[in-house]
Amino acid sequence: MEHRYELTIDKILTASVRNNPDQIISYQGKESITYEKFNERVYNLASSLIKLGVQKGDKVAVLDWDTNRYLEAYYAVPMSGAVLHTVNIRYPPELIYYTMQHADDRYVIIRDEFVPLVAQNKALFSFVKKWIIYSETGKVPETLEPGVNYDTLVNDEARIKLPEINENSIATTFYTSGTTGLPKGVSFSHRQIMLHTLAATSTLSDPPISLNSKDVIMPLVPMFHVHSWGMPYTSIMKGMKYVLPGRYDVPTILKTIKQEKVTLSAMVPSILYMLITNPDASKILADNHMKIIVGGGTLLRGLAEKARTLGIETIAGYGMSETAPILTLSTFTKRIIEMDDQKRTDYRIKTGVPISLVDLRVVGKDGKDVPRDSKTIGEIIVKTPWLTDEYVKDSEGTEKLWKNGWLHTGDLAVLDEYGYISIVDRERDAIKSGGEFIPTLILEDLISTAPGVNEVAVVGKKDEKWGERPIAFVTVTPKFNMEEVKKHLDTYVEAGRVSKFWLPDEYRVVKEFVKTSTGKIDKKPLRENL
Amino acid sequence: MEHRYELTIDKILTASVRNNPDQIISYQGKESITYEKFNERVYNLASSLIKLGVQKGDKVAVLDWDTNRYLEAYYAVPMSGAVLHTVNIRYPPELIYYTMQHADDRYVIIRDEFVPLVAQNKALFSFVKKWIIYSETGKVPETLEPGVNYDTLVNDEARIKLPEINENSIATTFYTSGTTGLPKGVSFSHRQIMLHTLAATSTLSDPPISLNSKDVIMPLVPMFHVHSWGMPYTSIMKGMKYVLPGRYDVPTILKTIKQEKVTLSAMVPSILYMLITNPDASKILADNHMKIIVGGGTLLRGLAEKARTLGIETIAGYGMSETAPILTLSTFTKRIIEMDDQKRTDYRIKTGVPISLVDLRVVGKDGKDVPRDSKTIGEIIVKTPWLTDEYVKDSEGTEKLWKNGWLHTGDLAVLDEYGYISIVDRERDAIKSGGEFIPTLILEDLISTAPGVNEVAVVGKKDEKWGERPIAFVTVTPKFNMEEVKKHLDTYVEAGRVSKFWLPDEYRVVKEFVKTSTGKIDKKPLRENL
Repeated sequence: MEHRYELTIDKILTASVRNNPDQIISYQGKESITYEKFNERVYNLASSLIKLGVQKGDKVAVLDWDTNRYLEAYYAVPMSGAVLHTVNIRYPPELIYYTMQHADDRYVIIRDEFVPLVAQNKALFSFVKKWIIYSETGKVPETLEPGVNYDTLVNDEARIKLPEINENSIATTFYTSGTTGLPKGVSFSHRQIMLHTLAATSTLSDPPISLNSKDVIMPLVPMFHVHSWGMPYTSIMKGMKYVLPGRYDVPTILKTIKQEKVTLSAMVPSILYMLITNPDASKILADNHMKIIVGGGTLLRGLAEKARTLGIETIAGYGMSETAPILTLSTFTKRIIEMDDQKRTDYRIKTGVPISLVDLRVVGKDGKDVPRDSKTIGEIIVKTPWLTDEYVKDSEGTEKLWKNGWLHTGDLAVLDEYGYISIVDRERDAIKSGGEFIPTLILEDLISTAPGVNEVAVVGKKDEKWGERPIAFVTVTPKFNMEEVKKHLDTYVEAGRVSKFWLPDEYRVVKEFVKTSTGKIDKKPLRENL
Repeated sequence: MEHRYELTIDKILTASVRNNPDQIISYQGKESITYEKFNERVYNLASSLIKLGVQKGDKVAVLDWDTNRYLEAYYAVPMSGAVLHTVNIRYPPELIYYTMQHADDRYVIIRDEFVPLVAQNKALFSFVKKWIIYSETGKVPETLEPGVNYDTLVNDEARIKLPEINENSIATTFYTSGTTGLPKGVSFSHRQIMLHTLAATSTLSDPPISLNSKDVIMPLVPMFHVHSWGMPYTSIMKGMKYVLPGRYDVPTILKTIKQEKVTLSAMVPSILYMLITNPDASKILADNHMKIIVGGGTLLRGLAEKARTLGIETIAGYGMSETAPILTLSTFTKRIIEMDDQKRTDYRIKTGVPISLVDLRVVGKDGKDVPRDSKTIGEIIVKTPWLTDEYVKDSEGTEKLWKNGWLHTGDLAVLDEYGYISIVDRERDAIKSGGEFIPTLILEDLISTAPGVNEVAVVGKKDEKWGERPIAFVTVTPKFNMEEVKKHLDTYVEAGRVSKFWLPDEYRVVKEFVKTSTGKIDKKPLRENL
């Protein structure tokens, strides 16, 4: 009992850095450091933070694109005993201020280009004790005080001993991108992150991802967004080459994929869409045979098929800010492995099956598990070792989130005969028509495969008779023909796969969709313009 | 903080059985059950044990070959709150009695063929409250009282609720096969086993094992021996088809490998040797392209090369009873992946690199890490989350095991430039000659590749001038020629890879080696006959 081993984030580095000291962490292919050097910088930074005055439990915020410095903070801040606050830099300024103030951020690591955003409202940020500023040029702006140069901290080798940390100490915090109401804060302990990392690496070894240390990863999930789905931790534990894209810019991303020979990525559907529709994409992507995990929105069949033509293996993943995030992946279970490849496609785009250690149920209003009939809709509820204990300073929200020891996701899903779940709606997006749910995600999935359709969103319009009726919004190519789309859907009605009653009353072509800060289609403005 | 998730063994089943209900557990290919059925039987058994009177912390022993019933006990006993004692059935009867009495076994699950062994000394086992007996025929012997039929327990569906278990509760206990002195007891908590399982599955996804749920595993490490290296837990977590060999018998094993299409196994070198030298082996093994983890003894180059000619990928693993057991695996790190296949062979047979979460050092007498020079010998010391806290009722042994927060393995090793360790000796097997170590394992490795040599063991003979000098014992084929072997070794001396001073003074041909209960060559009788 005396030889307690705390599950703290530094333990990810122990075996990995020792075994792969010369493995590479690359920033846009223009700056590279080895794991060994990275490890040194992380320990220097953690030690420097403490020397600067950071105390156990203090919140240290980061405002940055996806850079190697951000990756350093992912380790160094929790290792110093402090809490890493990954600020959503896609928020409007007032929400950036709101979340930083709500989180009680005391220290802020900030990239030079975000300094003006803060400096013009300096007085608001009086709760910040110290700004830790970096610039790729080495010369940092002096408009924020008191400030210190990040490079000084990370190069200070006069290290002090890091504190012992209990595994249940909070390591990270961030805010949901909630499309309704104010963002809600969630937080995760060292133990929760470590178990998430272990379970994810354990499950991802299954086909078709078959994760292993030969893979070169470039995550395209912003680092401010739910631990970049855990990849800063999982990939380093596996000893993989890690490529950071910086600010997302499609030509730079494609160039970097080519130069660094990236084999693995993860992203929301809209980023995948932007990548594969880029004119230069086909040549670059076809060479790399990439594997891409798509989450944060449904992986529509049309998009998966387009990606397939470029030699890209896609699988779906599902989780949320409250769940660290991974709950399910559409990796193949025994029954799917035994199918022929054509049939497997259906499973790649399902929301997946629970990963190791995840206890997941889909329950009806009566609290009972729904049958595995691909039809009956229920809410996903979960127990895993990596769920946020609460919304920060929000006991009412917390009470709704946790009921009877289960975290209630608010996501509606059906279960198929093999246990794969398919999310059919967010509870708040669901269309209730004539007393029944019309699953918008199923409609969006089918419409996405019609000729000429690029992106699609279905929302409910108030209706006197039915309560609500579905309206489909689409962005299109010149090939688009409304009658063809309707015929396309009719074939699914005839095949008995969708109910006639589900078909949208109306299709509207729009030039583009408004996206949320995490790149999902924002349905709010669509509903407001009905 | 209220939503605590305990890392208990039942959690392995949760996602895995849900996702793969029809995956198969096969006993010698003659009895098969699905994961779903297995899960039911496990829950029935756990519940029945409690109804029988088993209380939290009670020791429940198992005496069995590697059967599906044993696998059920691996889960059900800890899930009932009790402690699984995996009794070494290869011990002589007096040690079986000694360890069961030392462990305070209260309930015993026993296969019919082991009943006579106990029944003839019934009086000695008065500490046992109940014998839980099974027979493949269904008819159990009545010579042990009070007895109950295992089948009754496992089929009792009138389940009671299982108790909540704290993850730090002891789940398993067993005794070392120590070749000197009395066996020592070690024990492991639910948490330790769960973290071992997660880290092992995470690491084994690397090449050349590339573990995934498509693999069909048949472990050939006895289930009484260090959790069968964790495979009863890792393989089920991964949702793999699991094949149990029963009592080890080479023809049956080969037949089962063929019938069940086994792709993955793990075993000690002597079992691998027996398998590949069987006349029927080549055809069967060549078809399956098996991957085999070899541990519990050094994987000699000659054996690895022979296996390779049958299309078998071998890697080495290292651990001990005190470490649950896995510490290192010779899976490929970045530098090895980049090598050509020929060069990689050297790394497959090294003792390997630490797996995730393992902090491993090789330290000299001065307590400092040895250089990565493949020459300097030090002791392996470790910190991981799955080390036994103590030897049961042995504070003196415990004190020697744990010093300054590090578990001292007593194994001597060198480190190469890429961080791979190679064990050169057990501390107690080491030959000290002229004040310097002669690494017997390196000699055994080289001798094993000489023509005509089957198995080899090098031991130290007392010597007036040098203290000790090495003597080599070999089993041989008709091709064996002593002078050829000496010439073979001379080439390594000339190449500067071994010191002339290490060469054995003498070679002795023996008919066969005495093996320990876990199948390793027992050096004790060799030393006694010098």
